[in-house]
This record gives sequence, structure tokens and C-alpha cells, in this order.
Amino acid sequence: MTKPKAVILTSGGLDSTTVLAMAVREGFECYTLSFDYGQRHKVELAAAQECAEAYGSREHKVVTLDLRTIGGSALTDDRIDVPEAETDDIPVTYVPARNTIFLSIALGWAEVLGAADIFLGVNAVDYSGYPDCRPEYIKAYERMANLATRAGVEGQKLRIHTPLMDLSKADIIRRGQALGVDYRMTVSCYQANEHGEACGRCDSCRLRRLGFEQAGVPDQTRYYG
Amino acid sequence: MTKPKAVILTSGGLDSTTVLAMAVREGFECYTLSFDYGQRHKVELAAAQECAEAYGSREHKVVTLDLRTIGGSALTDDRIDVPEAETDDIPVTYVPARNTIFLSIALGWAEVLGAADIFLGVNAVDYSGYPDCRPEYIKAYERMANLATRAGVEGQKLRIHTPLMDLSKADIIRRGQALGVDYRMTVSCYQANEHGEACGRCDSCRLRRLGFEQAGVPDQTRYYG
Repeated sequence: MTKPKAVILTSGGLDSTTVLAMAVREGFECYTLSFDYGQRHKVELAAAQECAEAYGSREHKVVTLDLRTIGGSALTDDRIDVPEAETDDIPVTYVPARNTIFLSIALGWAEVLGAADIFLGVNAVDYSGYPDCRPEYIKAYERMANLATRAGVEGQKLRIHTPLMDLSKADIIRRGQALGVDYRMTVSCYQANEHGEACGRCDSCRLRRLGFEQAGVPDQTRYYG
Repeated sequence: MTKPKAVILTSGGLDSTTVLAMAVREGFECYTLSFDYGQRHKVELAAAQECAEAYGSREHKVVTLDLRTIGGSALTDDRIDVPEAETDDIPVTYVPARNTIFLSIALGWAEVLGAADIFLGVNAVDYSGYPDCRPEYIKAYERMANLATRAGVEGQKLRIHTPLMDLSKADIIRRGQALGVDYRMTVSCYQANEHGEACGRCDSCRLRRLGFEQAGVPDQTRYYG
């Protein structure tokens, strides 16, 4: 039997690598997609490639898209600093419309491949206040996607899978461990150095560290801080 | 009084240039956005820049996004020929998810600018069978966009304007003429040469030529064919 194809958005981080392992386990033939979007932490692209190969991607693509042209985020604009204190507002690390942009390119590739399934590692629990990580957003995206494409017009139902949506970071780590994911390969830090070592202080590092603690799993992340 | 800001997707073609002139007339401060997406007809980028300047864009940006990475269209894949005969199916010039991708990047820029209005020159009359040119698609996109963004979360209503949706090509040309648009500056052809001259045979040329005929406006397009 032919496996159904799926496009998996991968960043080389803890979440998306776990999603890839989940999609493989669910029986999908996985096509992984990363973006070179002018992010500060380019080391994540190397991690994404390594994780894609390690966890069963059939084909890994990197799409170049220069989001620095539009600016507006600490992750793509050198003039905005990555914060190291918590905030109740939507943080400056939010990249405007990033998930919408990434999902849209995944949708284009899915259409070329004849895939009806897209996996995204968003999470509403530890979501750092990003509007495009909420379930109502994903549902509206899926509805739009089914009207946008040839496949949708021809009656094939396109699904956006977000298997991490309701999991805590600790839950995600436990699931990944059960699937054999080696998190040393992943990079979550917003300001990782060129060796893939993490700062230990940014939002993303804090959530990750706390996740390992709460999961009762030793944190083998390499820190430079 | 400060004018409201709007992002206008411009391709250097007849439709989007008319949309820009309409948005300026409606009183928006216009920010124009084009894409260098690996299209065969790069001369459209020069036309887009020229039209943006001529018709009142406050700022013109070109985002680089290599859609050849995902392939799947005659417009981005050198192995697929541009057809010169009509078809009832969705044609091979359809770029998978193109409007969804372009709107998403426009959405990101709108968020950075604090703009609540995006203009897109899609058209359901002469739409060549592309699924992402239908009104139900645009409505679903707008709904999703309002859940995707910081502005949406904070209650600012984002609107996707498609002023050409119900107009024939002849109607569009008549409106543009009334607004003083000089269509010699625009390039619609899928396989224009480096001088901006049109083939006169592709789908896009056929629709454009017929539009001028039906509008009773002399067609000053330069053809090489």
C-alpha cells in the first residue's frame, strides 16, 4: 500500500522535530520544509536538515524567502533586540504572519506533491502569546486552504495537523522520547551561536529548560551562557 | 487628516496597476509589494516598479521568494511549456497557492506598517480557472487573516479588497482609463521578452487584447509575435 504523503514544517527545533517523528509513526511519507527567511539563528537550518534525515524525511527542501524586507521582528530585524525578560504582550520575537506565510508555501508544495496533509508544530499552551498559534486560527487556515487549491476544488480534503496544540513542553518531550528523538540534535534558542549552543536566557530557552525539568528528562542542551 | 495605509499587490500587469490607481483614488496611502519568485517573465518586475512610481506608491518593495524550489507551474518550472491553446481545466500556468503565499507576505508587511487594508487584483470573470481567484476564497482568507495577526487580536478589522472581482477585462480597462492609467507601461504576457514586448498568443495576451477590443480602446501593447 502506498503511504499518504504529508508536508512537515521543520525548523530544527524541539517541537517540529517531535512532530516529524509523530507523522512518520502515523504512517505518512514525510516531506520536510524549512525556510531561510533571514533569521538570526541560521544554525537552525543545519539542525533542520540533520533532523529531517535522522527522522525519516523522504525529501527535505529549504525555501529562500527574505522576510528582512518587511522587518518588524527581533528575529529578522537587527535593530530590535531579543528580550530576556517575560512579557504579557505579544513579544517582539513574533514574526508578523510567519505561520501564515510558512503554511502557504507548504500548501503550494503539498499541491505539487499531491499531498493532503500538512503538519505544523504550534502549541497553544506554551505559545508565547503569538496569535497564529491558536486553534481557531488553524481551523480558519484549513478552511481557506480548501478553497485555495486545485485539490480543494476537486474535493480532496486538505488537513492541517497540529499534534502538539494541547501539550505542555514536558508532554512534548515525553512523547518525543518515546519515539526515540534525540533532542541534542535540535536547536530552540533564538540566539544560538554558530555551534548550535544555546543562550539559556531567551523565552525559547526558558520554556525548553523548564520542559525538561517538568518531564523529568535530563536536559542535554549545550549552553554557551 | 492622516490617510489610512494600504498594501497593494502589484505585478506590473494591467489589473494590479488599475487596482493601485483605484486605491490611491479611494484615499489610501499606498505601499506596493512585488515578488521576485523565479518567474520566467522578470520584465514584469521592472514594470511593477515603474507603475508603482507613476501611480502614487509611497514605498515599493520586492520580496525575493524562490518558488522554483517547489515547482509545479509553467510560470516557474522551465520543464513545463506555456500553453497557447485554451483549456477547460485549471491551466498549467497556475502557480500552486500563489495568491495565498503573496497575500500572506502582504499581511506580514501590513502588520509591520499598521495597515488594515490589502488590495489584490483578482478577478472572477476572466480568471482563467484559478481556484484562488474566487470570492469565496477571498472571504475565507480575510477571516483567517483576522485571526492570524496582532491587529486582529486587538480588534482592528483587516480587509482584503478585490475591486476587480466582478469586472470584465473591458470594464477594468475603462476604469483605468478614467483614472489616467497608461497601459503601455504594463506587462501582462506570460512570456514577454526582455524589452517588455508581448507574445500575443498566451492566455494572458488573449484576454488582454480582447479586453481592449471590447472596451473600444486602442491596444497600444507592443507585440513581438
